Amino acid sequence: MSDLDIRPAAPADIPTIVAMLADDPLGAQRESPDDLTPYTAAFERLAQDPNQHQVVAVREGRVVGTLQLTIIPGLSRRGSTRSIIEGVRIHADERGSGLGTRLIEWAIGESRRQNCQLVQLTSDATRTDARRFYERLGFEASHVGFKMSI
Amino acid sequence: MSDLDIRPAAPADIPTIVAMLADDPLGAQRESPDDLTPYTAAFERLAQDPNQHQVVAVREGRVVGTLQLTIIPGLSRRGSTRSIIEGVRIHADERGSGLGTRLIEWAIGESRRQNCQLVQLTSDATRTDARRFYERLGFEASHVGFKMSI
Repeated sequence: MSDLDIRPAAPADIPTIVAMLADDPLGAQRESPDDLTPYTAAFERLAQDPNQHQVVAVREGRVVGTLQLTIIPGLSRRGSTRSIIEGVRIHADERGSGLGTRLIEWAIGESRRQNCQLVQLTSDATRTDARRFYERLGFEASHVGFKMSI
Repeated sequence: MSDLDIRPAAPADIPTIVAMLADDPLGAQRESPDDLTPYTAAFERLAQDPNQHQVVAVREGRVVGTLQLTIIPGLSRRGSTRSIIEGVRIHADERGSGLGTRLIEWAIGESRRQNCQLVQLTSDATRTDARRFYERLGFEASHVGFKMSI
């Protein structure tokens, strides 16, 4: 495999990121790759927030993966800072290549660099492969994740 | 029950908030109410971040509950903004009084006000009462919550 670069996402990456968000059993029902307007607005907001890190993985000039890392200060656990990983997507051509592991390891490393004491994420319970994947990386499936659309 | 006020936490509330974080089967093992230094530093960081809302519930001048609400912009779900609730604590004297419901309803209302489309939280799987509580409020236990200490 050729070299992989993980770098902050740029506005020009938005169409590819959205295409990856949509190319997913759950994402297909909730994304709109034909209308990028809401994504462009959200990207601007992310870009202005120093606690937000939307990154892309690039191989041979092609964006092949993405995730969002959020840094969250807090009082609990002796004033611990935690990070949250959201929206992990790997291009269909790259699934099974170890790129998911590389992206999550990048997120863990960046969380350490930012003095986080905890990394967390939630995964839809219907994504049965995800549990094995995250446990193999050292995560513990210790929590129940609740969501409410409002 | 007398009137309840939910307001942003102030530095003077830190000792009471930390005492509530520690007065909990899980919190007792991971908090240090005798040393407030790390909490004071974390509070300053929270206070400077416009996406962070550490609030307290006050009844008759006494702080009786707390939670942290974080606003997270993002690309997924058509550029949805989501909120995350962390560190929900109710003073021992007030448990069963409906205060937990009031605090979570406040967080949902504030999330709507800030144009969030999704509210989420994780609860330790050992907190068996929590599942019923959140489901009654309209949350769906649709996700697995993964954590890793680093």
